[in-house]
Amino acid sequence: MQISMASSGPQNPSQIMPLELVDKCIGSKIHIKMKGDKELVGTLLGFDPYVNMVLEDVVVYEISSQGKKVTRLEQILLNGNNIALMIPGGEGPDN
Amino acid sequence: MQISMASSGPQNPSQIMPLELVDKCIGSKIHIKMKGDKELVGTLLGFDPYVNMVLEDVVVYEISSQGKKVTRLEQILLNGNNIALMIPGGEGPDN
Amino acid sequence: MQISMASSGPQNPSQIMPLELVDKCIGSKIHIKMKGDKELVGTLLGFDPYVNMVLEDVVVYEISSQGKKVTRLEQILLNGNNIALMIPGGEGPDN
Amino acid sequence: MQISMASSGPQNPSQIMPLELVDKCIGSKIHIKMKGDKELVGTLLGFDPYVNMVLEDVVVYEISSQGKKVTRLEQILLNGNNIALMIPGGEGPDN
Amino acid sequence: MQISMASSGPQNPSQIMPLELVDKCIGSKIHIKMKGDKELVGTLLGFDPYVNMVLEDVVVYEISSQGKKVTRLEQILLNGNNIALMIPGGEGPDN
Amino acid sequence: MQISMASSGPQNPSQIMPLELVDKCIGSKIHIKMKGDKELVGTLLGFDPYVNMVLEDVVVYEISSQGKKVTRLEQILLNGNNIALMIPGGEGPDN
Amino acid sequence: MQISMASSGPQNPSQIMPLELVDKCIGSKIHIKMKGDKELVGTLLGFDPYVNMVLEDVVVYEISSQGKKVTRLEQILLNGNNIALMIPGGEGPDN
Repeated sequence: MQISMASSGPQNPSQIMPLELVDKCIGSKIHIKMKGDKELVGTLLGFDPYVNMVLEDVVVYEISSQGKKVTRLEQILLNGNNIALMIPGGEGPDN
Repeated sequence: MQISMASSGPQNPSQIMPLELVDKCIGSKIHIKMKGDKELVGTLLGFDPYVNMVLEDVVVYEISSQGKKVTRLEQILLNGNNIALMIPGGEGPDN
Repeated sequence: MQISMASSGPQNPSQIMPLELVDKCIGSKIHIKMKGDKELVGTLLGFDPYVNMVLEDVVVYEISSQGKKVTRLEQILLNGNNIALMIPGGEGPDN
Repeated sequence: MQISMASSGPQNPSQIMPLELVDKCIGSKIHIKMKGDKELVGTLLGFDPYVNMVLEDVVVYEISSQGKKVTRLEQILLNGNNIALMIPGGEGPDN
Repeated sequence: MQISMASSGPQNPSQIMPLELVDKCIGSKIHIKMKGDKELVGTLLGFDPYVNMVLEDVVVYEISSQGKKVTRLEQILLNGNNIALMIPGGEGPDN
Repeated sequence: MQISMASSGPQNPSQIMPLELVDKCIGSKIHIKMKGDKELVGTLLGFDPYVNMVLEDVVVYEISSQGKKVTRLEQILLNGNNIALMIPGGEGPDN
Repeated sequence: MQISMASSGPQNPSQIMPLELVDKCIGSKIHIKMKGDKELVGTLLGFDPYVNMVLEDVVVYEISSQGKKVTRLEQILLNGNNIALMIPGGEGPDN
């Protein structure tokens, strides 16, 4: 979704911008829910304007009719295109 | 959907622009209906031109054939891409 | 769909441009058919170039195999992305 | 689909450009086939570069397993995003 | 799919560019396979950078589980968005 | 997927860029796997930045539950939008 | 997903940017998980801003209800559009 930022006065200064929230997560745990039934938890090492994310010590949870598949990966680059929501400091679906 | 703003006189000045509506919600409750069967209620802390939203004290409602799953999260960053509609001051599907 | 406006003489001056049609609806009722089986009727308060719409006194109709679900909402911001067509002055699927 | 217009000599001058075809339809009947099973016939009043169309005296045909549903609407704004093809002067699926 | 044309020497000069191929079809028959099960054959009158195409003496073939539906149309504007491939001089699926 | 090329030192000079790989295929065989179950083999005559491809002596393989359908075409323009991967010098699924 | 980089102070300098991670993989093994059930392992020779990737000594794993299909390919160009995540130095689903 895009919203036009034109034709309006100064925005509410007391906001926490999405960028700041993600930037603060660098070096900490983040729980990411993807579109569909995949979730990940890992330590955020970096990201770019497309919210592609470099993550370390990653646990991937895939929930399907056959149950929950858990995969551990040392370091990954995640395509930001399918992120639904992020939970700073989140420990994952079991917590 | 995009509409061309070219070749037309000044727009109706007595409008409430989408941006203003969201800006006024900063610090207040907002009920968000996603595409598909997910809804959220939370306090809006900030947003950007892609309507990515920083939300606090969040309740996520997922309605499926197995019933309604409710998840409570302290703070999240929501990808604006899948928002269907927003209800300023809304209390969620139970209210 | 996009069409190239290049390499052609002046367009037909006696047109009603899409923008003008929506602009004239400010303050009046509008019936909106979404992609899929959702329809809304409400009073249009404002819109932006992405056809995100601020609507008041809104009735949402969701037609499914279980019948028609009707929801009334005071004020909403609708993501323009899933609009199929709009009927200026329309009263909704029952009328 | 997009095609690169770079690195080539002058285009064939004896073309009828898509824009000209639509422009000539202003004030006349046009039959529009949408992606999926919806068709419309109406008088074209105006359009923009996104092929959003202002139409009058509109008949909407929705073909489903339950048969053909016909809806008559005075004036509409059609989102150009789901147009498959247009037939200038077309009278609709029954003709 | 997009490919970055940066950081490389001059491209192979002995190419036939996609634009040239389509341009040469103006005034001749072209067989178009759409995404899904629709095919068309017609005479190409013009096209734009979005490969929207003005076609004349058109035959539309729709192949479904109920068999093949053939529709003849005098003149159409085809949305280039759903084209899979084009066969210059092609006579259609029966030939 | 897009990746931000900003804020980084000079890229690894010893790369083979995607553009170079395709450019080298001009005049030779290339095996193309599309999204879904369609594959093609043909001689590459040209391409543009959208990876639309002019191909000659083309064999199209469509694999479905009814078996493998093989179609031979003299010359085509392929919409680059649905390409999954390309195999320079590839002879097709039977080889 | 896109995030606005505007209106914020300098970003956290101690990041590992996505671009750097991929750049470091040039000449080494990389395990790529696609959207859907396809995975690849190969040696990365080059990539562009759309993350189209030139890969060598490639093994493609396609997991379906009929089991796992393994295909070996000398050299390919992969369309970056359907990449879900990448694992630098990864050896593939069996390891």
